[in-house]
Amino acid sequence: MSGLRPSGYNLFTMKVADLGEFGVIERLTDLIRLRRGQGIDAFDYKLLIGAGDDAAAWRGSDVTELVTTDTMVEGVHFTRATTPWRDLGWKVMAANVSDIAAMGGLPLYALVTLGLPPDFDVDDVDKLYAGMLDMTEEYRFSVVGGDMVRSPVVFITIGLTGATDGVLMRRSDAEAGDQVAVTGYLGSSAGGLKIILGELEAERKAVESLGEAHRRPRPDLHQGRILATEGVKAAIDVSDGLVDDLSKLCRASRVSARIQAHQVPVDPTLRRTFPQCYQDLALTGGEDYALIFTAPQETMKRVLPQLPTPATVVGDILDGEPGEVSTVDATGKDVTPAIGGWDHYR
Amino acid sequence: MSGLRPSGYNLFTMKVADLGEFGVIERLTDLIRLRRGQGIDAFDYKLLIGAGDDAAAWRGSDVTELVTTDTMVEGVHFTRATTPWRDLGWKVMAANVSDIAAMGGLPLYALVTLGLPPDFDVDDVDKLYAGMLDMTEEYRFSVVGGDMVRSPVVFITIGLTGATDGVLMRRSDAEAGDQVAVTGYLGSSAGGLKIILGELEAERKAVESLGEAHRRPRPDLHQGRILATEGVKAAIDVSDGLVDDLSKLCRASRVSARIQAHQVPVDPTLRRTFPQCYQDLALTGGEDYALIFTAPQETMKRVLPQLPTPATVVGDILDGEPGEVSTVDATGKDVTPAIGGWDHYR
Repeated sequence: MSGLRPSGYNLFTMKVADLGEFGVIERLTDLIRLRRGQGIDAFDYKLLIGAGDDAAAWRGSDVTELVTTDTMVEGVHFTRATTPWRDLGWKVMAANVSDIAAMGGLPLYALVTLGLPPDFDVDDVDKLYAGMLDMTEEYRFSVVGGDMVRSPVVFITIGLTGATDGVLMRRSDAEAGDQVAVTGYLGSSAGGLKIILGELEAERKAVESLGEAHRRPRPDLHQGRILATEGVKAAIDVSDGLVDDLSKLCRASRVSARIQAHQVPVDPTLRRTFPQCYQDLALTGGEDYALIFTAPQETMKRVLPQLPTPATVVGDILDGEPGEVSTVDATGKDVTPAIGGWDHYR
Repeated sequence: MSGLRPSGYNLFTMKVADLGEFGVIERLTDLIRLRRGQGIDAFDYKLLIGAGDDAAAWRGSDVTELVTTDTMVEGVHFTRATTPWRDLGWKVMAANVSDIAAMGGLPLYALVTLGLPPDFDVDDVDKLYAGMLDMTEEYRFSVVGGDMVRSPVVFITIGLTGATDGVLMRRSDAEAGDQVAVTGYLGSSAGGLKIILGELEAERKAVESLGEAHRRPRPDLHQGRILATEGVKAAIDVSDGLVDDLSKLCRASRVSARIQAHQVPVDPTLRRTFPQCYQDLALTGGEDYALIFTAPQETMKRVLPQLPTPATVVGDILDGEPGEVSTVDATGKDVTPAIGGWDHYR
């Protein structure tokens, strides 16, 4: 990144107020241009105008388009103590890409809004952007503009468009009789956060792998494409925790669900590090950005072997109180976790 | 609006924390559904999924698509004392629609992100949304989703998509020799703010018309469409003031500009109310959401009479220091206003 800085920039720490809104935006526009990579070629989209005009612009063809948004606020969704800026950039992008993955689409163009206090370090803005661009490179999409505003509290809002040439997976299309499955492991991000917060001494391997799960979650974009292509109709991503997000899906579909707690896939490292509470972490921990999806048993049988990473059936969709999610152990006993979903306001 | 509230809601003032994130979002989703109106039919777009899923979705046809974003933060872009919530909703939408207008497009789908403290009144959330939906109805586009997050400071971020079946107007396509023109009157919003702030006693008509200009600015969407269709290639909207926004356009086009201050169109009410400073208000006042555009003289001659509201030639594009904008009076004397553009950080 140092190559981007006019000489002398590294002699002192610049504040946003030193460069001014226009100065910082120009700097970020350069950063974006340097790292846009090969550009976007999915579905015949063609970017016409990126950062620097009143709006970004692209030409589409006959596909289904998507748009989503996610925001992180300092002190609410992250703290400087636990999340380095570069990881935060990755995470806020990941939250948005995961929404596109949960629809079965591919991400295309992102707008980045930064709310920053005047004394925010410009170097930290660069780090934030570097993390976002890490993700745009790896998941092949582009930042095409945004906004920067003065704010007493740091916040980052991403608006992300996407598209698919296939059928969308919707929250509202789960049906009683469907099985419920999840991609990957659950609870790893929440476990990683506990380690980062210093709540326990963990072995080095756990610090690394669970810490990585928390700091650099990897949305299951490719898996989402396969699921949608292979006929899975209902999906949601795990941002607030399995029970909470499955409840949202059930509410939208007017059904209930039962989870077999012992079947919820957990990283062996998480189980070893948190022998008392790994199951609660897997049921209620947020920010794994895995996918929850539902489908009839025969569809599941066909789809699961096609995924590049394991996915696991963890329960069933039932007729019942819309949105209700119960959790049982191997003996059928209710073990629904006391911790509810994550409502920032409660 | 009262018809939307379950009985009892008006007996006390609800806080966001009382309803919770999910409760408020459900309430807003209902508000949006009630007021979506006839839906969107421009350019064969067809909305597939509105609020309530991981992403909104629509099918497009072969047009050029646009996306923009704008944010307002309490204490920076507005205060509760000067801007009622309903007007704020209108204004933040207007800022985004105006960006689409400056490209020559039509607005289509909006995502609304609200950053709200837990003790923010739910009634005020409704008012904010009512103002946004006032604008979506009048300018014929839809709110299709968004996000609500806890934040110590109130902020509103809009992400707005749009489209055009014609050529885009770009900031970067002004050329030396072009004339510079603006739609409507300038400075009215800044004058209205001065009146609202109580900086002077104004006659009732001024209070009304300038206050309205500040509280309910009307983006020149129809005018933008005509300009783009008739061959105008460069445009930007007036959000930060004529001098500042024209400077941005010039910077992007690597040209300079000269404004004839006496030709800048001013509402007679503004002139009468602010006889000392109306010209400075017109040159540097922000939030008028008029359009600045440049074109060769013959294009101007053809285009101006076709606009439904008057537009005025106010200066020329010159070869010169990129981004430099000078202002002269009728005698050619430099009257470049001391007040620079609006950089929130300086």
